[in-house]
Amino acid sequence: MINWSIEENGFNKERATGLGNKFLTGNGYMGIRGTLEEYKKEQLPAINLSGIYDQAGEGWREPLNAPNGLFTRLVVEGEEYILPEKECVSHNMSLDYRHGIFRRLTRFCTAKGDIVLETERFASMKEKHLICLKVKVTPFFEGDFEIITGIDSDVWDINGPHYEQLDSFQIQDSIFASGITHECREEVFVGETIDSTFPFQERIEYSQKYVIRHLSVKGKPGKEYCLHKYISVYTSKDMKNYREKAIRLLSAAKEKGFQKLIEEHMKIWEEKWKVSEVFIEGDDEAMEALNYSLYHLHSIAPRHTKSLSIAARGLSGQTYKGAVFWDTEMFMLDFFLFTEPEVAKTLLRYRIDTLSGAKKKAKHYGYEGAFYAWESQEGGFDACSDYNVTDVFTGRPMRTYFKDKQIHISAAVAYGIMRYVEYTGKDDLLKEGGGEVIIECARFYYSLLVKRVNKENYELWDVIGPDEYHERVNNNAYTNRMAKFTFDAAIKILEMEEEFEAEASKIEPDQKRREKKVLLDNFRDGVKHLYIPQPNDENGVIEQFDGYEQLEEATVSEIKSRLLHEKEYWGGAYGVASHTKIIKQADVITMLNLFSNEYDKEILYKNWAYYEPRTEHGSSLSACMYSMVACKCSMADKAYPLFLKSARADLEEGGKQWAGLVYIGGTHPAAAGGAYMTAVEGFGGIYIENGVLKAKPDLPSHWTKLRFQIFYMGELYQVTITKKEVHIEKIKRESNEKSDT
Amino acid sequence: MINWSIEENGFNKERATGLGNKFLTGNGYMGIRGTLEEYKKEQLPAINLSGIYDQAGEGWREPLNAPNGLFTRLVVEGEEYILPEKECVSHNMSLDYRHGIFRRLTRFCTAKGDIVLETERFASMKEKHLICLKVKVTPFFEGDFEIITGIDSDVWDINGPHYEQLDSFQIQDSIFASGITHECREEVFVGETIDSTFPFQERIEYSQKYVIRHLSVKGKPGKEYCLHKYISVYTSKDMKNYREKAIRLLSAAKEKGFQKLIEEHMKIWEEKWKVSEVFIEGDDEAMEALNYSLYHLHSIAPRHTKSLSIAARGLSGQTYKGAVFWDTEMFMLDFFLFTEPEVAKTLLRYRIDTLSGAKKKAKHYGYEGAFYAWESQEGGFDACSDYNVTDVFTGRPMRTYFKDKQIHISAAVAYGIMRYVEYTGKDDLLKEGGGEVIIECARFYYSLLVKRVNKENYELWDVIGPDEYHERVNNNAYTNRMAKFTFDAAIKILEMEEEFEAEASKIEPDQKRREKKVLLDNFRDGVKHLYIPQPNDENGVIEQFDGYEQLEEATVSEIKSRLLHEKEYWGGAYGVASHTKIIKQADVITMLNLFSNEYDKEILYKNWAYYEPRTEHGSSLSACMYSMVACKCSMADKAYPLFLKSARADLEEGGKQWAGLVYIGGTHPAAAGGAYMTAVEGFGGIYIENGVLKAKPDLPSHWTKLRFQIFYMGELYQVTITKKEVHIEKIKRESNEKSDT
Repeated sequence: MINWSIEENGFNKERATGLGNKFLTGNGYMGIRGTLEEYKKEQLPAINLSGIYDQAGEGWREPLNAPNGLFTRLVVEGEEYILPEKECVSHNMSLDYRHGIFRRLTRFCTAKGDIVLETERFASMKEKHLICLKVKVTPFFEGDFEIITGIDSDVWDINGPHYEQLDSFQIQDSIFASGITHECREEVFVGETIDSTFPFQERIEYSQKYVIRHLSVKGKPGKEYCLHKYISVYTSKDMKNYREKAIRLLSAAKEKGFQKLIEEHMKIWEEKWKVSEVFIEGDDEAMEALNYSLYHLHSIAPRHTKSLSIAARGLSGQTYKGAVFWDTEMFMLDFFLFTEPEVAKTLLRYRIDTLSGAKKKAKHYGYEGAFYAWESQEGGFDACSDYNVTDVFTGRPMRTYFKDKQIHISAAVAYGIMRYVEYTGKDDLLKEGGGEVIIECARFYYSLLVKRVNKENYELWDVIGPDEYHERVNNNAYTNRMAKFTFDAAIKILEMEEEFEAEASKIEPDQKRREKKVLLDNFRDGVKHLYIPQPNDENGVIEQFDGYEQLEEATVSEIKSRLLHEKEYWGGAYGVASHTKIIKQADVITMLNLFSNEYDKEILYKNWAYYEPRTEHGSSLSACMYSMVACKCSMADKAYPLFLKSARADLEEGGKQWAGLVYIGGTHPAAAGGAYMTAVEGFGGIYIENGVLKAKPDLPSHWTKLRFQIFYMGELYQVTITKKEVHIEKIKRESNEKSDT
Repeated sequence: MINWSIEENGFNKERATGLGNKFLTGNGYMGIRGTLEEYKKEQLPAINLSGIYDQAGEGWREPLNAPNGLFTRLVVEGEEYILPEKECVSHNMSLDYRHGIFRRLTRFCTAKGDIVLETERFASMKEKHLICLKVKVTPFFEGDFEIITGIDSDVWDINGPHYEQLDSFQIQDSIFASGITHECREEVFVGETIDSTFPFQERIEYSQKYVIRHLSVKGKPGKEYCLHKYISVYTSKDMKNYREKAIRLLSAAKEKGFQKLIEEHMKIWEEKWKVSEVFIEGDDEAMEALNYSLYHLHSIAPRHTKSLSIAARGLSGQTYKGAVFWDTEMFMLDFFLFTEPEVAKTLLRYRIDTLSGAKKKAKHYGYEGAFYAWESQEGGFDACSDYNVTDVFTGRPMRTYFKDKQIHISAAVAYGIMRYVEYTGKDDLLKEGGGEVIIECARFYYSLLVKRVNKENYELWDVIGPDEYHERVNNNAYTNRMAKFTFDAAIKILEMEEEFEAEASKIEPDQKRREKKVLLDNFRDGVKHLYIPQPNDENGVIEQFDGYEQLEEATVSEIKSRLLHEKEYWGGAYGVASHTKIIKQADVITMLNLFSNEYDKEILYKNWAYYEPRTEHGSSLSACMYSMVACKCSMADKAYPLFLKSARADLEEGGKQWAGLVYIGGTHPAAAGGAYMTAVEGFGGIYIENGVLKAKPDLPSHWTKLRFQIFYMGELYQVTITKKEVHIEKIKRESNEKSDT
């Protein structure tokens, strides 16, 4: 059995920012960094909002952090007892990741005697605009103390400040803080109300940058003073009457009370786990790490809207500009598709709704169809800069090509949509624009195809594959194969439409049908001629791109030893890896994982054995792909450490936290999704054959049982795998239970 | 009237290396740097040999410097009177560039009294393996002095030493030094013999690294002691019996004597000038600079063989690896074609004879046909490194693409051959392999053509044009147009062959004829579809390559102000110029100069006005192209300073001399050739129309007359241009005079 809880004892100033990610809570609408209530912006607290962005001046456009309604400080005799400034007697933090509840308990020593501050908080899974915070103070002395609590609008930003106008005010017994953004003049509107079990004297202090209550309490030794804060968070993008909604939400919450609210919240979490928990017998560490990863995916899943995706760093802050990458479709999607298909649909609908942005981007570069944003923000705007890296030697921005040449992004979108169709068996998404998206992506690739005039092959030149250390390459195996996938998908869709049209007896005008015929011919032509790098006759290795074989042979440690500066970029035109065979992350192996059924196990193995030692795993997207292909080669024990690396990505507080003075830390939901895929599709070996859910498992030697549930074709199945057998059983559900809760 | 002589008074140690280039003498077989006889390798003296190379260890392969048979020092009372070590009373150096004679006169002050050393030397234009040196010593005291003279085998090298084995010995009264190279074990064999007008005591000292005579002389005040040295230079590449030849040459020279030899030498020079002198009335400075430039071209022209080209730095040393660039065909060729067509043929035959190297290079990159070396050495071997530049910030080599992507080199070769055909009217070169070269170059370009599958155009991608600051671009206007030129030329040749075959009534087997038919079809297809960037409808500007327009607008001085290190590279992936419109050298303008008849004068002007301010002129190949196009826009006065810049390139001692510790200085024969083209084709306005030599001149305002002679169709014409008229007159020549002397 596992604890479903992680803990942290003692206070270490250096680790406080990292713990903000590890102890994150959230409900898809917002993410609350696991920072302490007394923190001001210097300590990087954040209530990070999904799907709303602002650009201040020339800085990068990034998502907003809401005014911090959690802000609470303890004062004794005019002195603030707060971390990290004051030393504490003891400090403990915990996260109940079964229920998304954050708790802390800190004991300070004052001149009068000790005092204990205890809090408990959650972003409600039921009311997505509500945060609840319980503050419990226990003085071990007789005498006055003060609780300062309210809303701090002077929030932490990476490229802020984002609020051009700030305001604070009181309505009845609630206090409010409002900020208006620069770019779109959206309002972020945070309210707070309190109740308590004890009497106090209250004074409310207003300023532009905060609104806080000073609660003076006459304390008795050993007595617990318990205060509840109900915090509403809305933006003008959510709905028209968001101010009224906020006022009503606060009074309803206060009326219902903290206890009832936390019970409702926990009940929803339990419902999530009923479907999504992955049970591993014989390996508590793995089970804990994996389910902790799933907790993160649940906490950032958009369930308050029908069209939104997940940023590469989830809701852990403004890092990576809060932008959506291929991470969502290629690494996170399966978890939702398997456990909560409606969320999967919401994620994909974001791509349908940003098709116009993708078409605009394609046009900008002179291509046809849809070229999705490498770093997608509102409306599909590509937030990716032409200069993504700073040269550590000159301090100059370096021209990078992630935005212009990582063309595999459009195929990832098509792949996600087709995967939805495959696992749900439904064509709703295709009809709601998904079909059009795929056709536009195929048009994009068709317009990119080049051929040597004297050769038959069609090729894709001057691209960047998943391995970003090698820029501007020709015929990246992954990219070419994904383009072919897109053509195949578009052909399928056009053929389906053709059938439908035939039945509908020429409702569609001739012109449009002729256009479709041309597209169909083009895509078939694309499939027929597109060059897909094949395994080398001698060693079975698929060349990552034209000329990769000629690059310098080196080891990762050799490359590291060549670094002149610990932070220098390995890629680009002259990076230490650029002219060697060292790659950043799974590339050919990602392709082989997706299309493993097209290759012999021997080829999978040979490529794994070739590329793994040449991979830095410099991206959290790398390990899971190697892990899955290892499973497909019946090497579960080689897969295991890579799986654990993915599953523990956010537990470890690993990954880079700072790039110079810029904070780049955050959670790694793609690694979490990758860990899930490895468990279910790697070790579990889940696959579809002729419309039937099957499993070809390969468990690590110390796992005695693996059990999970997944949705397939609208039905929920329980899969139980032991060393001896695989048992796949359809679960009967009550009629009011729906896959999307 | 001009002096036909340059002079240098006084001695300045810092300028000594630069003067080595400015005072160069040579005869095409070898170049003698204008350094002093007493110099050892630290002062960079060199007798640089044409067409023979060696690679020592991992260093760059470079041409050889022969053992220095000029080596001479003056000793008085055991003390050496040499520069730069000793101070001198006076020092004067001069170069008679009408006759290729170097002279120096230095007066030293010894404890006994002053002593004057005077020398005169030349590389014989008649006997290409012979150097003659006269040494005249005048003591102004009574007493002994010593002349040390012999052969110094411890030569200066950039990437040496190149002699694995050194030897020295005496045969009769001649001394010899021999060196055997590492790579091909070729022998460089230098001999020396002397005669004198005065008695001396002689002692010969041998060592591996030198062989020197110690001549002790009893001096009388004011008396001149005159010694003649005859130096033979051969290599085992020249002929089989080179040792015998050397011995015979030395005794013949000694028998003939210095005076006779210098007269023969001067006579040949006068014959050269008879045809090649360019007379400018009203501007002695320009006339001097231009004819001084022509002197350099004469001094390095290969006349001792039928197949050899000229290195980018002529015979001034090992810089640029002694390699042949496009400089020869595109910048130097016209001078020889117009004044000495046999030399032009020799230059081009080098390309015919290195076709196999070019085919090998093409094959290496997966292309067909002939991809000529960017830096061509023996056999067409490409000496260009993949890493041509060192990053000043990291000290690391930077991957450059001059070798792989500067595909316009093959077109330059084709262009040179066709220009020979056009101006001589002869098909000898075509028949001797030139036709095959052109067809192979066309095959090369055809194999490089790409098309977007959904577009009609054929394009050339991922190239570097003349402007090397912008790497890996698509559709460089110059490159595409030159590829089209190559197709056109190949078509012409194939069509000629077709006619010939028709006459020869099927001598050629069917198979071969069918192959030719395929080539003809391909090249016609190439011409039809190859995309040639056209003038923009609005501003008339031809875009240098796809996307140039989108680059940052900047000025050269702005770019300079961004430099963090004076020696940092402007190009590459992240150079200060790379993402701006600032270009290194004429690119579109080079194209417009070559094909000016295809464009309206207005278009020429608009492009000139657009690109000139955006050009750094960071290459000595740049100014002349702008100058010629300015002439074609009737802007002779704007052309003039650019012309003078080209003509004075070697007079100025300008250009970079050092890159860190590596010597990169040398002469600039392409600039010299560019100055010539500007005078004759720019100001003189010479062109061919329907097989007739014509002129459309535009003289600078202060020039009152321009007169020169040029060969056309085997006839010599004198062209005289004044403000009022153009006079082109056929010159009657005696039957024994030949164009190739």
